[in-house]
Amino acid sequence: MNIEMIRAAARRLEGHARRTPLLSSPFLDEMAGRRVLVKPECLQHTGSFKFRGARNAIAAMDPEARTKGVIAFSSGNHAQGVALAARAFGVPAVILMPADAPALKIANTKALGAEVVLYDRATQDRDEIGAGLAAARGLTLVKPFDDPLVIAGQGTVGLEIAAQAAAMGVTEAQVLVPCGGGGLTAGIALALEANAPAMQVHPVEPEGFDDVKRSLAAGRRLANARQSGSVCDAILTPSAGEITFPLLHRLCGPGLAVPDDEALHAMAAAFSRLKLVIEPGGAVALAAALFHADQIEAETVIVVASGGNVDAPLYRAALERFA
Amino acid sequence: MNIEMIRAAARRLEGHARRTPLLSSPFLDEMAGRRVLVKPECLQHTGSFKFRGARNAIAAMDPEARTKGVIAFSSGNHAQGVALAARAFGVPAVILMPADAPALKIANTKALGAEVVLYDRATQDRDEIGAGLAAARGLTLVKPFDDPLVIAGQGTVGLEIAAQAAAMGVTEAQVLVPCGGGGLTAGIALALEANAPAMQVHPVEPEGFDDVKRSLAAGRRLANARQSGSVCDAILTPSAGEITFPLLHRLCGPGLAVPDDEALHAMAAAFSRLKLVIEPGGAVALAAALFHADQIEAETVIVVASGGNVDAPLYRAALERFA
Repeated sequence: MNIEMIRAAARRLEGHARRTPLLSSPFLDEMAGRRVLVKPECLQHTGSFKFRGARNAIAAMDPEARTKGVIAFSSGNHAQGVALAARAFGVPAVILMPADAPALKIANTKALGAEVVLYDRATQDRDEIGAGLAAARGLTLVKPFDDPLVIAGQGTVGLEIAAQAAAMGVTEAQVLVPCGGGGLTAGIALALEANAPAMQVHPVEPEGFDDVKRSLAAGRRLANARQSGSVCDAILTPSAGEITFPLLHRLCGPGLAVPDDEALHAMAAAFSRLKLVIEPGGAVALAAALFHADQIEAETVIVVASGGNVDAPLYRAALERFA
Repeated sequence: MNIEMIRAAARRLEGHARRTPLLSSPFLDEMAGRRVLVKPECLQHTGSFKFRGARNAIAAMDPEARTKGVIAFSSGNHAQGVALAARAFGVPAVILMPADAPALKIANTKALGAEVVLYDRATQDRDEIGAGLAAARGLTLVKPFDDPLVIAGQGTVGLEIAAQAAAMGVTEAQVLVPCGGGGLTAGIALALEANAPAMQVHPVEPEGFDDVKRSLAAGRRLANARQSGSVCDAILTPSAGEITFPLLHRLCGPGLAVPDDEALHAMAAAFSRLKLVIEPGGAVALAAALFHADQIEAETVIVVASGGNVDAPLYRAALERFA
């Protein structure tokens, strides 16, 4: 896993993934007490950064294997990223989802051309079903984060941050990244190590699900006690990956954790000040910048808004409370 | 008024105005029955395209006159555009607003460094107060649309559309633009006449406030019967300008008009599919693309989302009804 893999990913994604802008607002600067730059991956295809890694992994596959198709386990952003990337190559995508996943997410994934296979979380083993399907049909698994090609795809966000910030005269900054399994955070950290070495990356998690923060402090991979119970569903991962954690440990500064209410408040600030729709899990880094200024030292903080796939009722509730 | 003025504006705005992206979603394509490309000027500084024209006008001023400051009449997007542009040059901005303007808009304009002067709509004459202030303090008026430098600034949106669409292989399209006084629409039409001559521009207005549509059909400037009564407040202008109308008449195809409910529905679609916050007046072009497909012929429709400054209660109501 090295910077050359991220540069190769950038070449594969050129003209396919969006180069999202780097946004700002004087109102956010004032709230945070410093310059805030926001990288809105909610504007990426399928509404999250996940498209980058999925597309890179599928683009790099052996063409013959790719023709048979890909499979992914996901009820969320990764599912949509894999579905759209597979469709672009004209190959089948099978997405294994729990039968109780929101109907809208199932419908959206199907609408992007994927075959959705539902399983019963209580009585069926997802891995077993997936392995059976993959073997029977020759499908290749696209992992959500613990895969070098996926990490490299997400790392292209870091290449863009380095170039866009430099164009604004910014070479030193703390970079806050919403962190689940760590694919996005590790990829960005690798890219910045090479292209913006004076920037320091910090993973941001929901309170109560701060396994990466605790793991970085302990120097070894720890897991979360719970797997649900936060509105930040997109980043509730049991623990960092076997590939991502050593990268996070080598490259990232201390983690930060924010309560759900601050994520919702940050969503409302992004509505008012950036005109961006951010989902709760995608808003934790902005929340840390706005509401934990005392834990940040740099004059400039760069935050990644990693996705925008939020249901309307939750979004309305966030605006009602905080906008 | 010619293309060279728009190119000069682009040079003045380089590094200051944002080059907003050109976005799309397969879900919107399906709703519209054709390819839909969205130019989100809601992501521009101050949340609307108005910053471009204001900044260009102030940048082109005689430096000595500029030092004395500028004045504008506006309770909305133009006010914020002028305030931020003036602040960037370190010169005073006086914004004349009705005393019953929303407190949030007054607060935002002040927060951008402007001096807000309130007047009573019932008893005071805005033009008289403005003329008095301008004379006493040597302020220069920045008009909202009927000024060549303002039109040229807005026209830079058209230069970007031409270049971004060409990079996607699109040279033929119908371009739908939310239209109030016509500064944005005329500027884009002039830019596309030069840089993308196979594109045809159509102004889009709220039903009941379709003076430009009727004026284009009649060949002369007509006015709206009413001045309020639509949620599309940003584009409720009594009539097109003396400078903008001849440009619209020479360059633009028939206008379209959409009911308020369709604008709100388009806002909800932009929330779900683009992760963009669009205000009602900024959503009329997207509404026309999504809900009036029968009035469009081209394989590709490009819509401008001209602003995103919408209050949270109205936005929540739009999502509740249509998301």
